[in-house]
Amino acid sequence: MKMTLAEIALFLGGTVIGADDTIINNIRSIEEANEGDLTFIANKKYLKKLKLTKASAILAPPQTAAEGKNLIIVADPYAALGKLLTLFFPLEHGHSGVSPDAYIEDGAIVSPGATIFPQAFISKGATIGKGTVIYPGVFIGNNAFIGEDSILYANVTIYHSCIIGKRVILHSGVVIGADGFGFASPGKDNTKIPQVGFVQIDDDVEIGANTTIDRAALGRTWIQRNVKIDNLVQIAHNVVIGENSAIAAQVGISGSTKLGKSVMVGGQAGMVGHINIGDGVIIAAASSVHKNIKPGQIVVGSPQVSHDEWLKIEACKLRLPRMRVMLEELVKKVEYLQAKINKSSNEG
Amino acid sequence: MKMTLAEIALFLGGTVIGADDTIINNIRSIEEANEGDLTFIANKKYLKKLKLTKASAILAPPQTAAEGKNLIIVADPYAALGKLLTLFFPLEHGHSGVSPDAYIEDGAIVSPGATIFPQAFISKGATIGKGTVIYPGVFIGNNAFIGEDSILYANVTIYHSCIIGKRVILHSGVVIGADGFGFASPGKDNTKIPQVGFVQIDDDVEIGANTTIDRAALGRTWIQRNVKIDNLVQIAHNVVIGENSAIAAQVGISGSTKLGKSVMVGGQAGMVGHINIGDGVIIAAASSVHKNIKPGQIVVGSPQVSHDEWLKIEACKLRLPRMRVMLEELVKKVEYLQAKINKSSNEG
Amino acid sequence: MKMTLAEIALFLGGTVIGADDTIINNIRSIEEANEGDLTFIANKKYLKKLKLTKASAILAPPQTAAEGKNLIIVADPYAALGKLLTLFFPLEHGHSGVSPDAYIEDGAIVSPGATIFPQAFISKGATIGKGTVIYPGVFIGNNAFIGEDSILYANVTIYHSCIIGKRVILHSGVVIGADGFGFASPGKDNTKIPQVGFVQIDDDVEIGANTTIDRAALGRTWIQRNVKIDNLVQIAHNVVIGENSAIAAQVGISGSTKLGKSVMVGGQAGMVGHINIGDGVIIAAASSVHKNIKPGQIVVGSPQVSHDEWLKIEACKLRLPRMRVMLEELVKKVEYLQAKINKSSNEG
Repeated sequence: MKMTLAEIALFLGGTVIGADDTIINNIRSIEEANEGDLTFIANKKYLKKLKLTKASAILAPPQTAAEGKNLIIVADPYAALGKLLTLFFPLEHGHSGVSPDAYIEDGAIVSPGATIFPQAFISKGATIGKGTVIYPGVFIGNNAFIGEDSILYANVTIYHSCIIGKRVILHSGVVIGADGFGFASPGKDNTKIPQVGFVQIDDDVEIGANTTIDRAALGRTWIQRNVKIDNLVQIAHNVVIGENSAIAAQVGISGSTKLGKSVMVGGQAGMVGHINIGDGVIIAAASSVHKNIKPGQIVVGSPQVSHDEWLKIEACKLRLPRMRVMLEELVKKVEYLQAKINKSSNEG
Repeated sequence: MKMTLAEIALFLGGTVIGADDTIINNIRSIEEANEGDLTFIANKKYLKKLKLTKASAILAPPQTAAEGKNLIIVADPYAALGKLLTLFFPLEHGHSGVSPDAYIEDGAIVSPGATIFPQAFISKGATIGKGTVIYPGVFIGNNAFIGEDSILYANVTIYHSCIIGKRVILHSGVVIGADGFGFASPGKDNTKIPQVGFVQIDDDVEIGANTTIDRAALGRTWIQRNVKIDNLVQIAHNVVIGENSAIAAQVGISGSTKLGKSVMVGGQAGMVGHINIGDGVIIAAASSVHKNIKPGQIVVGSPQVSHDEWLKIEACKLRLPRMRVMLEELVKKVEYLQAKINKSSNEG
Repeated sequence: MKMTLAEIALFLGGTVIGADDTIINNIRSIEEANEGDLTFIANKKYLKKLKLTKASAILAPPQTAAEGKNLIIVADPYAALGKLLTLFFPLEHGHSGVSPDAYIEDGAIVSPGATIFPQAFISKGATIGKGTVIYPGVFIGNNAFIGEDSILYANVTIYHSCIIGKRVILHSGVVIGADGFGFASPGKDNTKIPQVGFVQIDDDVEIGANTTIDRAALGRTWIQRNVKIDNLVQIAHNVVIGENSAIAAQVGISGSTKLGKSVMVGGQAGMVGHINIGDGVIIAAASSVHKNIKPGQIVVGSPQVSHDEWLKIEACKLRLPRMRVMLEELVKKVEYLQAKINKSSNEG
């Protein structure tokens, strides 16, 4: 694809500073960009690299100063980059229509506008919406529902009766609706409690590779609109994740825990079951959360504390060996003083 | 399904308090239950919700008081719930028999009483027992053995020569028998040590989605009877897990570590290799265990300590900033006292 | 297979101590070995088991003393074991050639010397090298490249345009090239940034079951030569891992972080994004690394500190309850002294 800076600025609603007839063929990172490439500044940290880049032009935020460089000024360069990448690199699946080499059971309802690859399996009672793409090795269980314009990459598994919305993206190896981990007398009889609920995933959700979301014991496990979940995340039965939340890789959320809207969770964090995490909470990477968190809080650590408290505790932790020495010296000094005082009292 | 309370009580061996001809159509959680639903109290925490539930009846433990409510009293309501759910929601796979669209190699021994879905792959020398269900996308390697009445959900992989018992449930994405992580001169040559052992999984084990259990270097990796393992767990080569143990999600157990019977491990905990965890040990979530643990111990933390010790240390950790201030004030105070004493000695 | 000790010593370049015509049929661990078995001492810890083993001979390091035992002395017994296991247990896939029951799209370039199992899917534009083995349920995306003599076990997924080298081993459930986790205005709009880069995996890499390696946003995510990665590891977009590094299970590495050569990372460790880990660094299990680490450092903890510092801090942490008591006693004692001094001054 070839576009001039003027055309790109028009597409993005931005303003060109410099030669607006410069032609752009590709988009590259600031270190790798060359003649003919557009690059971007999404993070102030990279501003110092501006002078050295060989890119023909740079997507940059307002007030960026870069003498001798062509700029396209936009309010949010990272979002603009996303828009532009969609234009330069349109997603292609290389197939369309329902393959005769897919296995579609009688009683499945597959939109003729869906794309079903060979080697996909659609069970009876399942529904596949228009515009949805189902890759090879995907299994769709009985009575599962997949809305329109969703993408299920290779080797995704959807257990029976789960509901997936519109424009949902499920990456390879995702498992939706396996049994929740429910056993009576755990550690002794381990009697299985049948998991007879389902999973509901609302519109515009994206879920990373090999993430697992268990079906509810009763009722539903619910991932709300526009939630984004990274790879290898564990979502247990009856969890609810509020809309627009973002969950980084390898997070684990235990059963029946409820996250509000716009919660952000760092990688490898964990939450116990049956707690409530308020709207807008931020949980730092690798934290272990064991109790309710009020809306808007930032928590860190294992077990978690507020970010302010954590900073103080960590500063002390690093000084602990010094504190230990101080304490031992002080004990000796006080003993010495005491002896001296006793002596002087006795003498007095 | 419709049953009266009298019929349900008979099935569960319980006692009705209230109108025993009440008809039950469904089973729901205490918040969601309505007219015609049975609900349950598995946890004392939920007793206060008893008054508000719209359920027609409640499965409850002995001595539950709930005026005006229909109760079925049973010794263990959670186990009773499990039994009842099995009755109300019988597990259906929607297929039976060996599909001609499965790929079964010559020399595989598949019971005519097994269910093999289309798109499953059974290698030569493999055995599939009677009543076992193999979903699409499952791969069974050469000479693997799967006992009777087991369920392997979609996209499970069993490497060659592994042994799976009876009534075992493997959820989607489980990988049994991939090579253990064994390399000579790690970080330098990384020379692969062939992993020529196998995995043995005994009867009544259940393993969650995307969990991985590596084959032994030599000999076996062994998951004993009635062990329950959650999603995304890593079990390394030559690990042994004793019967009735329960392992929560995202736990990692390093090579050759041995767990006794009835061990319970919280989510995201990790264990180093070559250690022994005694019978009945409880390891808290997110703990890192680096040495042998005696039977019956409860351990917490990273690195782990006993639960009692952990409580004391954590209490101090939260007071660390205060302790630091106290210590610094004390240093000043003692210096002041010392100066005063010196002065008074000199004066004296 | 049957070999005499003399033949084995010749194969390994070792020296026999004892009866060099002893016949070996099998290789077993030191506890399980019996008459006719060879065993090995890879770790000094196991030297005390030497006397009790029933093995007919033992692979051992120089200067091993074991009266009455047959030994083969080699410089590195663990590496020698690896070599010998390859001879005794040659890897067999049970198939060869390109199966007509694989789904190979027009425009895929598959070497006639490759092995493609039934139920594999090779997309158009993809290349599969000579000697490479592709198991059932493997999906190879458009324009992906797989070099020679690699093994992709069942249910591996390779997204479009990714590049895999020679002699690479990918275990079941591995996902290469799913979209990196990139969203503008995270927690609010969550606007997807298309991930238009790729993954490059160099020669001799091995990757464990269900590990996920995301495609770059722009450019490449790069796993260099001879890197070994265990199960359930998360490698985010644009990460680079230097040659010969070894990454244990359940590690998570965030976006754009760069590891040098020969880095060793313990299980469940995590790294934030955009940092540099120097050559030869060792990161202990379960550590959380949040900043650049210089070459050769050993780091531990969450957040990480140097190993020396960590040992001191942990020793103090365990003494914290004692330190708290000392501190409180000291406060009282100093108050008492102060009162006494004040009294004596007043009296004086």
